[in-house]
Amino acid sequence: MQSFEQLSSQFGSFFNQAHFPAQPESLYRPAEYFLGLGGKRVRPVCCLMGNELFDEILPDTWQVATAIELFHNFTLIHDDIMDKAPLRRGLETVHIKYGEPTALLAGDVMLVVAYDYLNKVKSPHYHRLVSLFNTTAKEVCEGQQLDMDFEKQDTVSLDAYLHMIELKTSVLLAASLKLGAILGGAGEGNLHHIYEFGKNLGIAFQVQDDYLDCFGDPSKFGKQVGGDILSNKKTFLLIRALETAQGKDQQDLQALLQSNPPDKVQQVLRIYKNTGVDQWAVQLKNQFMEKALQHLDDIAVLSKRKEPLRQLAHFLVQRDY
Amino acid sequence: MQSFEQLSSQFGSFFNQAHFPAQPESLYRPAEYFLGLGGKRVRPVCCLMGNELFDEILPDTWQVATAIELFHNFTLIHDDIMDKAPLRRGLETVHIKYGEPTALLAGDVMLVVAYDYLNKVKSPHYHRLVSLFNTTAKEVCEGQQLDMDFEKQDTVSLDAYLHMIELKTSVLLAASLKLGAILGGAGEGNLHHIYEFGKNLGIAFQVQDDYLDCFGDPSKFGKQVGGDILSNKKTFLLIRALETAQGKDQQDLQALLQSNPPDKVQQVLRIYKNTGVDQWAVQLKNQFMEKALQHLDDIAVLSKRKEPLRQLAHFLVQRDY
Repeated sequence: MQSFEQLSSQFGSFFNQAHFPAQPESLYRPAEYFLGLGGKRVRPVCCLMGNELFDEILPDTWQVATAIELFHNFTLIHDDIMDKAPLRRGLETVHIKYGEPTALLAGDVMLVVAYDYLNKVKSPHYHRLVSLFNTTAKEVCEGQQLDMDFEKQDTVSLDAYLHMIELKTSVLLAASLKLGAILGGAGEGNLHHIYEFGKNLGIAFQVQDDYLDCFGDPSKFGKQVGGDILSNKKTFLLIRALETAQGKDQQDLQALLQSNPPDKVQQVLRIYKNTGVDQWAVQLKNQFMEKALQHLDDIAVLSKRKEPLRQLAHFLVQRDY
Repeated sequence: MQSFEQLSSQFGSFFNQAHFPAQPESLYRPAEYFLGLGGKRVRPVCCLMGNELFDEILPDTWQVATAIELFHNFTLIHDDIMDKAPLRRGLETVHIKYGEPTALLAGDVMLVVAYDYLNKVKSPHYHRLVSLFNTTAKEVCEGQQLDMDFEKQDTVSLDAYLHMIELKTSVLLAASLKLGAILGGAGEGNLHHIYEFGKNLGIAFQVQDDYLDCFGDPSKFGKQVGGDILSNKKTFLLIRALETAQGKDQQDLQALLQSNPPDKVQQVLRIYKNTGVDQWAVQLKNQFMEKALQHLDDIAVLSKRKEPLRQLAHFLVQRDY
């Protein structure tokens, strides 16, 4: 059994190659540029770990892991266009550097190349793997659409937000683990548990992300604290605060959503603390984390084999701050 | 052997169903809307005809034909975004009706659903089919990128333009026929000839399209005559005229590309006629058409079986005007 760090380094070496032809450069250089921005490669490593939980890592798994990472990068390129994001990992997004039409096409061709890698798979489970990959791909598109829909709505229920996060973020993590497990020959029960482990872990991660945007240590978080507040982004915390704040807190919060005073972040944080939204978020995250770990416990393999996945969970989601 | 009209009608019935879930409506209604705009369904019917040339039409072929039509519509939705096209078949394009982000996502999810249909194929040739589908998909993206690149260039050689047209337009027609032929169990020689038939036919069709924009009967052509001239679009005719016009014609043409006099279309058409570009285009189209028909002749099946493909060629490309 190998650790996340070991597999991440191995996958990095495997993935660090040209995935596209040289010509036409005007299409393929932007695609390679984006892959060169790097990333933790969490999803493909999850695929490798899902496989290694049940078997030695098979050659097929590297192909599926590569397809997953290319799919993920395709969604990032297109999301950046839709969100008009200027930067990704501190560098220019593809549409800023090369223009929107090229970014759109570079994303398209990256998705096709993801399917090229899938097409190399020899596994007897081939059609099932592609089916899960496709279902997940559609769900991720649905999640992005719902996220954009929510931006235009005045109110979003916690359930609706949770569903959107599941689609946009969690299912790809869950599917990556399950794809690896299918390749490893896991049975139905184990496949269910590893998928639910990934799904709940993904939600816990997002709750944490929303929390850290408000209460994180700026030196560790790597993003501007309060960015979500300044952009009125609907997060677990804002949605919960809108549902539970009362009296003056409620009025102040509504007013702050309509204005941009210089101390907006501090004022919103004060309301979050008054209404206990900060503590609620920590509890919510812990609930999903515990649910994830319970599903990990329920996977019927030797506990020792699960150690890397347990470490991954704690690496992605810290239990306390 | 069935005619294009018969197969087109059958495919229309098969294809005329919901290809997407109902929810979220904000994503899937735009996708269904676009498919509802219709079209001649030339490419999927080519797939059916390519199959029927060698065998009875297999259940798999309907799945592949559907994947092809969804892929084609995905490219149209994204091309319309890139080209900022307001209308498609006389109705609003997806990005005009639903916004660019949704159009982008609706295209993405349509490509994924195309792969869902491919994944239903049981043929022993499965991986070869997907490989050709993917290669073609990449080529179509490359063609669109080159087309956009050419718009920004002052000059484009005829060879470069021909290569772009091959990628953007011809290879999908060629691959549709070949995918059907692979499903029908055709051998290597026949596969080569049917692909080349489609490729040359596609180029002949594009030459005709460029010609009709200049010299077509407006009542039959369905588009504004001279549209390409008014937008300075690089076409077979303009590229050839820029390469061969001399003296005053050459100077006038260069000046017309920098200006928009009210009689621009008439002036450019006069230069095209002076330089014989109109006759050259008819000859060029006939050359590609003859090459296509030669490859059709070379396919080693009974001549009678080829009759529908011969009719299709003449339906798509008229020998004379």
